[in-house]
Amino acid sequence: MANSQDEVLQLHATHHGVLSIQRELPVTNKTELGQAYTPGVAVISKMIEKYPEMKNRYTMSGKLVAVITDGSAVLGLGNIGPAGGLPVVEGKSLLYKDLAGVDAIPMAVDQVPVDEVVTTIKNISKTFAGIHLDDIAAPRCFEIEEKLSNVLDIPVYHDDQEGTAIVVLAGLINAAKVVGKKLTDLKIVINGAGASGIATARLLQAVGIKELTLVDIHGVVTADDQRYNRFQCQLAAQLPAHDQGATLSDVIKNQDVFIGLSDANVLSATQVKSMAVKPIVFALANPKPEIDPAVAQQAGVAIMATGSSQYPNQVNNILAFPGLYKGLLATHLKRVTYDLEAALARGIASLVKQPRPDKIVPGVFDDGVVATVSQAVVDFEKER
Amino acid sequence: MANSQDEVLQLHATHHGVLSIQRELPVTNKTELGQAYTPGVAVISKMIEKYPEMKNRYTMSGKLVAVITDGSAVLGLGNIGPAGGLPVVEGKSLLYKDLAGVDAIPMAVDQVPVDEVVTTIKNISKTFAGIHLDDIAAPRCFEIEEKLSNVLDIPVYHDDQEGTAIVVLAGLINAAKVVGKKLTDLKIVINGAGASGIATARLLQAVGIKELTLVDIHGVVTADDQRYNRFQCQLAAQLPAHDQGATLSDVIKNQDVFIGLSDANVLSATQVKSMAVKPIVFALANPKPEIDPAVAQQAGVAIMATGSSQYPNQVNNILAFPGLYKGLLATHLKRVTYDLEAALARGIASLVKQPRPDKIVPGVFDDGVVATVSQAVVDFEKER
Repeated sequence: MANSQDEVLQLHATHHGVLSIQRELPVTNKTELGQAYTPGVAVISKMIEKYPEMKNRYTMSGKLVAVITDGSAVLGLGNIGPAGGLPVVEGKSLLYKDLAGVDAIPMAVDQVPVDEVVTTIKNISKTFAGIHLDDIAAPRCFEIEEKLSNVLDIPVYHDDQEGTAIVVLAGLINAAKVVGKKLTDLKIVINGAGASGIATARLLQAVGIKELTLVDIHGVVTADDQRYNRFQCQLAAQLPAHDQGATLSDVIKNQDVFIGLSDANVLSATQVKSMAVKPIVFALANPKPEIDPAVAQQAGVAIMATGSSQYPNQVNNILAFPGLYKGLLATHLKRVTYDLEAALARGIASLVKQPRPDKIVPGVFDDGVVATVSQAVVDFEKER
Repeated sequence: MANSQDEVLQLHATHHGVLSIQRELPVTNKTELGQAYTPGVAVISKMIEKYPEMKNRYTMSGKLVAVITDGSAVLGLGNIGPAGGLPVVEGKSLLYKDLAGVDAIPMAVDQVPVDEVVTTIKNISKTFAGIHLDDIAAPRCFEIEEKLSNVLDIPVYHDDQEGTAIVVLAGLINAAKVVGKKLTDLKIVINGAGASGIATARLLQAVGIKELTLVDIHGVVTADDQRYNRFQCQLAAQLPAHDQGATLSDVIKNQDVFIGLSDANVLSATQVKSMAVKPIVFALANPKPEIDPAVAQQAGVAIMATGSSQYPNQVNNILAFPGLYKGLLATHLKRVTYDLEAALARGIASLVKQPRPDKIVPGVFDDGVVATVSQAVVDFEKER
């Protein structure tokens, strides 16, 4: 382990991170200088002054995605500050390029008030073709995303919300097939009412799933509980009613699905045994799942998914975001709607031709993932 | 001309601009994924949480320069908006990479009030190792640079100010040698009181030149003239006194040097003839100089420089900024002071071993320009 840590540090130190800027034109003489820079660019600058949208054709701003974090909810590490979040957004930017050929730049934004974050990003938004928010804590992330979407004319996407929701739905589509239950009939408990829990619940609602229960560390989230923020309360108000104070143990009984977007080891074998027949467990906490897969198997789980590459059925946002932005840039769609998210989930699910208990989602490196997801965006845009 | 414009447009459209993001690590399997992204990066994120300066070692933020414009004074085109400025900052970012191996990212910032520009850049500054401001109109540019320098712990540099001042001084050092006059004895008129005129005057003052006169379209700039901003008035107050209303024709008499940072065709043959013996004319307006070089020669100019590559003695910021930032990143110097600017000017001047009337500055593509300038930064830092 010490060796592999040293190796990782060495790999990231060699080039100061995992990305560089690459030139697309050589500049080795006056002719090339005049084409790449002045006086040549004056023609382009004047054209953009007249037709601002031409910037997307003639400058990097037409292809560049900003991957922005404030470091307030980084991996499972909590609030480690904007700089602490940089390695993660840099890694995602690398995946954009490596997997989908999308040019993305990692950025840290200070933890200033929500409206100042929005203004900051708005003020530099002409630099970019899209915004990817990452590792921003709830409820800030909801407000930032909503306000940014309203003031920008480029797509705004929060990977911890929409990305997770898309891949969870993809897994559920195939899991339902495997256990022979109808997707919209599933009774589902979501444990964890942060960014990904809320966004997943919203998407599942949007595709017609009604029997949803949202639980967090205090028990069932209810609309009149002062401990919850307005996003949690608004959602809870739309879900089937529960008594305040009901615990996970109370509400997990007879449920078809447990979706964990919370912490390690919060689901017990006894709780799994109390679920409906052929229980489905997505224990997505990272790096340690809500229940050990071996324990879950012994407790009779029919389908088990985690967020880790160590086990079968890795529910990982990497299945979604590279292809999603490749498609967004190709179509110039401005909004990531629930309908688009659902279309992408169906696209990802379709990559598994014969779903089995240990194969409900494709692997990150399976052929066709990015192509299928980006094509799903293109098809969605055509059919609108 | 139509063909060459089409060629430029085609070159810039092929890749959406002249830059891309390049990966420094491959991600083709789970092992590489774990090193480039999670779980590997968690080690780095935790280290940065504890030691924030480690971001410079382990992420792109330790090498990345933001080249930022608001498009308020682009080339000779005036205020064409933030997007209109993008082709120029993209071209400069390309030159950073091509000439000096410096990773730079072009950015447009909206034309919001000065304090909001400062806050915007400050809020994203952990993303970068340095700030290069470009094509921002005076007096905004003075305030933005000053305020940013005070709130950031990375270098802030405005190419239209410091870059121009450095290369003008480099040219003057060699021009003085050629005409056999002492640099600090030169009587100099600077025509143009914008960003580069003010910054050049300040640097020439700082190296001990006392006989400086600042002129603009209204005539000599005087400290008590309401038409001038506080930066112009402050500078004028430190210069030899002139009567308000004195014109360029009045003050050019018996001067050794004319430095034009203004507009085409504002200097006449008659005015050149009224200068001291062996007059030096830097007519740096772009694309057309303040006086046609052929006219100036006929009027008896001893040394003629322009901003154009069509003539000898091209005074071009490209001689300064790539090597300057290469040196800043190597030394971690935080401020571009007058002393540093002067050291760089001497470095650039030293590249011309035998200054002649038609060779007072090196060519942009001459061997050793970037190496000499960056080494001058390193030497300056050692000798402090």
